[in-house]
Amino acid sequence: LMDVGEKAAVEDLVKLAGSCGGIGPGDDAAAVDLGDRYLVITTDMIAKHTHVPEVMTAKQVGWTVAAVNYSDIAAMGAIPLCFVVSMGFPKETEISYVKDVARGIKECSEMVAADYVGGDTKECYEMALAGTAIGTVRKDGILLRSGARNGDLLAMTGSAGLAAAGFEDLTLDIKHPKARKALLEPVPRVKEASLLSASGFVTSCMDTSDGLAASIHELSRSSGVNFLLNWDSIPIPSDVYEISELRLLQVEDLVLYSGGDYQLLFTVKRESVEELHQMMGKDFTVIGEVREKGSNVIRRSGQLLPLENKGFEHFKG
Amino acid sequence: LMDVGEKAAVEDLVKLAGSCGGIGPGDDAAAVDLGDRYLVITTDMIAKHTHVPEVMTAKQVGWTVAAVNYSDIAAMGAIPLCFVVSMGFPKETEISYVKDVARGIKECSEMVAADYVGGDTKECYEMALAGTAIGTVRKDGILLRSGARNGDLLAMTGSAGLAAAGFEDLTLDIKHPKARKALLEPVPRVKEASLLSASGFVTSCMDTSDGLAASIHELSRSSGVNFLLNWDSIPIPSDVYEISELRLLQVEDLVLYSGGDYQLLFTVKRESVEELHQMMGKDFTVIGEVREKGSNVIRRSGQLLPLENKGFEHFKG
Repeated sequence: LMDVGEKAAVEDLVKLAGSCGGIGPGDDAAAVDLGDRYLVITTDMIAKHTHVPEVMTAKQVGWTVAAVNYSDIAAMGAIPLCFVVSMGFPKETEISYVKDVARGIKECSEMVAADYVGGDTKECYEMALAGTAIGTVRKDGILLRSGARNGDLLAMTGSAGLAAAGFEDLTLDIKHPKARKALLEPVPRVKEASLLSASGFVTSCMDTSDGLAASIHELSRSSGVNFLLNWDSIPIPSDVYEISELRLLQVEDLVLYSGGDYQLLFTVKRESVEELHQMMGKDFTVIGEVREKGSNVIRRSGQLLPLENKGFEHFKG
Repeated sequence: LMDVGEKAAVEDLVKLAGSCGGIGPGDDAAAVDLGDRYLVITTDMIAKHTHVPEVMTAKQVGWTVAAVNYSDIAAMGAIPLCFVVSMGFPKETEISYVKDVARGIKECSEMVAADYVGGDTKECYEMALAGTAIGTVRKDGILLRSGARNGDLLAMTGSAGLAAAGFEDLTLDIKHPKARKALLEPVPRVKEASLLSASGFVTSCMDTSDGLAASIHELSRSSGVNFLLNWDSIPIPSDVYEISELRLLQVEDLVLYSGGDYQLLFTVKRESVEELHQMMGKDFTVIGEVREKGSNVIRRSGQLLPLENKGFEHFKG
């Protein structure tokens, strides 16, 4: 797997997995036709050595495995219904740790008004938690990665770079609580997704968990369009600047090329953006637009530069 | 976790997990109210060192992680709809291995007419595969562990002990292909479950994956009744006798106190058992009955003996 990288491996597997009379795999979640609506299903695993920083509490671990799955449900415009989890723990794990993980799952589930309905616990040499979230969405409300069209604007909820900054902050003496919280307790944008879906103005959507640049490239690939991203429009919290300075890192590496934020990246019909702003209470930012021609680019200091297609990937490196 | 054992740990977690306006956790799967029917959801993880014998091929690994989950769906009387899987693999895993796992999942899914719709692949020090199967069932057709009543007969599909014998067979020179197949390619009784559910004659149901004795004790606990099991009525394949002799083991340890069979254990109204036999084409066997009083017992050579409550459990030992 090392040579292939996670994305290529997942793509191969997606070809093997079929579609269920609904929307095939390749989006944040799969969708299955239930007659009047789609059932939307996603599964996401976190393993200790790749996903769980030392400082992360058991409750935050549980919160996170729920949150990343609910984020995938949100990215499809669906409303979360329920959650199950398979948990592999080393034999020596304290039962109190396991219970706190379950409490974290329960809290995150309550936040998104979904029900944590059960799971499985097994022994595994490394802690590995696999959550599955299930949601439903009206058929005309489903949001896919493939719907962006010429003329659409590119937008995102929240901000970029905060979780990556939080990760860098772990090695600093001065703590930045907001950044750490973004890393350790990601908030899936479930309410926002529901509004985006109901609006009818949104043409494509996905979450930014793999990084902003990688997500833009993915929307581009799925929709068959290219994007112009305005650097100056991206909402970047001051913590991201501060931490990048303290850690001697480029701000753009945190903002564009790191994962861990669970914002929604979406395209919206240009003529409807004002109305959407009113519906959403301004809780999103236009950061670019579909380009008629060319490749994916970023405008910075008046220059158009190529937007690199790199982000956080497992297995590689 | 070592002290508590898997069952106690799962029970604690079940209390933390809520119910979803449907049937709470504690059964083989959770059920969520969809209005006209229940959505039935289960998740089950297999980890390499506890669940994957050396001889098991990648395709059998995939088949098994699908089969054990479909068996839980079947145990609820539901029809499988679709399947997702989160897979953790060590970095050095060959992509061909991963693809064969996916092929095994696909084949098992095709057998039960469900759709394998996607998943997640991550890096994990130990191979850990967490499947989630989803099914649906008419509200009046759901089968729970809690419905057994005085007067009911106890019955099971297929036979007992074959998978456990297959496990013992792995260390023998003379291979017993049927027993090995039962271990390495378990067949979830999906069609039978669907008939049991549709019949209206079945009062409780679960699968025998944790062993026949443990499953009987679980039905007993959930339903608040006790059972008399007839040793002479249990369908025991000749391979089980042969292998137990070759391995110098007690037959009853393989038949009663070992896991790995994925048969359906259920109770049926006494007056309906003939009709059910006709519907099911005789593909089940009455092995006992509900007792009005006393504890769970087994009748053997004319004697009533206590039925021990032991089986296969993770974490303990």
